[in-house]
Amino acid sequence: IIISGLAAAPLSAFAQQDPLPSWNEGAAKKAIIELVRQTTTQGGSGFVVPADRIAVFDQDGTTWAEHPLYSQALFALDRVATLAPQHPEWKNVEPFKSVLAGDYAAISKFSEKEWLEIVAVTHAGMSTADFEQIVRDWLPKSKNPILKRPVTELVYQPMLEVMAYLRANGFSTYIVTGGGQEFVRPYSDAVYGIPAEQVIGSSIVTKYEFKDGKPVLMREPKLFFNDNFDGKAIGINLFIGKRPIIAFGNSDGDRQMLEWTTAGDGPRLGLLVLHDDAAREFAYGPANGLPDTEVGTFSQSLMEEAKARTWEVISMKNDWATIFPKPKP
Amino acid sequence: IIISGLAAAPLSAFAQQDPLPSWNEGAAKKAIIELVRQTTTQGGSGFVVPADRIAVFDQDGTTWAEHPLYSQALFALDRVATLAPQHPEWKNVEPFKSVLAGDYAAISKFSEKEWLEIVAVTHAGMSTADFEQIVRDWLPKSKNPILKRPVTELVYQPMLEVMAYLRANGFSTYIVTGGGQEFVRPYSDAVYGIPAEQVIGSSIVTKYEFKDGKPVLMREPKLFFNDNFDGKAIGINLFIGKRPIIAFGNSDGDRQMLEWTTAGDGPRLGLLVLHDDAAREFAYGPANGLPDTEVGTFSQSLMEEAKARTWEVISMKNDWATIFPKPKP
Ligand SMILES: [Ca+2]
Ligand SMILES: [Ca+2]
Repeated sequence: IIISGLAAAPLSAFAQQDPLPSWNEGAAKKAIIELVRQTTTQGGSGFVVPADRIAVFDQDGTTWAEHPLYSQALFALDRVATLAPQHPEWKNVEPFKSVLAGDYAAISKFSEKEWLEIVAVTHAGMSTADFEQIVRDWLPKSKNPILKRPVTELVYQPMLEVMAYLRANGFSTYIVTGGGQEFVRPYSDAVYGIPAEQVIGSSIVTKYEFKDGKPVLMREPKLFFNDNFDGKAIGINLFIGKRPIIAFGNSDGDRQMLEWTTAGDGPRLGLLVLHDDAAREFAYGPANGLPDTEVGTFSQSLMEEAKARTWEVISMKNDWATIFPKPKP
Repeated sequence: IIISGLAAAPLSAFAQQDPLPSWNEGAAKKAIIELVRQTTTQGGSGFVVPADRIAVFDQDGTTWAEHPLYSQALFALDRVATLAPQHPEWKNVEPFKSVLAGDYAAISKFSEKEWLEIVAVTHAGMSTADFEQIVRDWLPKSKNPILKRPVTELVYQPMLEVMAYLRANGFSTYIVTGGGQEFVRPYSDAVYGIPAEQVIGSSIVTKYEFKDGKPVLMREPKLFFNDNFDGKAIGINLFIGKRPIIAFGNSDGDRQMLEWTTAGDGPRLGLLVLHDDAAREFAYGPANGLPDTEVGTFSQSLMEEAKARTWEVISMKNDWATIFPKPKP
């Protein structure tokens, strides 16, 4: 019934329908729609065959909220609390002591070495299947400490619309995140409509072993691939082997991904989300004089490069009519 | 016209059509068709949603010929000859001396270190784009020294039929090769109908650099990922993140891929191609008393494991009515 109803609707109704209703009219929305028009117009000079219509999205700060801490960091901190009863010594040993005390001031200053210690106990030492289950169990219990909602509800409605719009126009949509590939995969399909094989991220070494007569992949506390900065261009080439047509990011870690994307021939588009909306989400840069941050840094030098390369800067405040989807009833 | 013609054909004609005409009736063909029936029967206990219908194929010796040497080794040797005028010293230095002399007896005994020296000069030191072009230029000039045809014509017709049959039934078909990912991608679509993003293989380190104001990925003479043995299970998890339903291999390097695949719940199938057809292709094992080889070793221990785990062994001699496609006119 639904299908025949759609089929009966006049085509012009679809052509006039706004594919991006949560976007205000502006340069960013216009550039996205124009790129899709160019790349899908048969016989046009910018036409791209569907197999080569690749769209890449950074995750943290681009498709979902990343402040006050990356969701994966929230996961790691919650996991430390869950595991603490088995490790009574953690109460007196950093970095676990600060985590268990909920000392966010200290946590926000953790060094890379301290984060690696936390990652080692929360992300390694179990099989890939067990890790997936741990993430799945955590997600509905997760809570952003400021926005007070589960992390999977803090996705950006305008980006969900862009993903759906691109897919409806023959694009394949990939997540290309500095976060953990195996952290994102358990929810990427439900949250973004992106299947596991289109999630590219950082990863740790896995080791093939037999347990109880069955093969397992054990997660080792050792970095395998850092999908950030130049790693994003490298990862796109490694996992996809095709240069994207359009790339969305929000921080200095996305610089090379946008450079790599927009250096290609024909129509290409790079876009950067600027968090300039303290009222509805957060405001940070330090680009454009916004408050500085270690989480999702958008530097002034990235802003200058965006201008020089004619990348679009998406102002959350001005370009997005809606930020988050309505809470589920 | 073609579409309406198909639509008008009675459905029973399709049901009765043999999807694998180059396969003789036998246990292997029957097992493939039965797996497809089980996994695609709506409401059946073995039903698998299309998104999870993953099929993986080793390449060398499984989807194309690998004797007397892997095609990528032939490429490397030809490349040494091409580059030799720029390196007059190679005439007196091993391993290049033997390569330039066409001394196959010596080449077949090269150590891993000697191959790495050859790989370093033939596969590294250029951008990914330049390497792709070098491979594309070589392919039509390539020639298997025994079968006397370009390597891309030495694909196995029965495997092309299996790939098409699986895709027609909603499966995604991946190459999972110990060979170089970036060596395979330039021809995988034309030869197998498999796009770049569904080619998983071994890879070397790439480095993000700017040349003439444009970003390039430079290939470094350093292994990044060895997609062989346990690496095949690890690579499948890394690149796809889903456990395959069906896996095709031919040698000890595919052992873990088949273990990983067939350890999953529900219907799963592992198959191994046995090269037992000296008349039409090659005969080697050493399984089943066939001649021993260093190229695509199918050991007796793999044969025993195949029996124990009820993997299907495909006899090229008995199961395949045709080996290679007819030469193009
Ligand atoms: Ca980000
Ligand atoms: Ca093989």
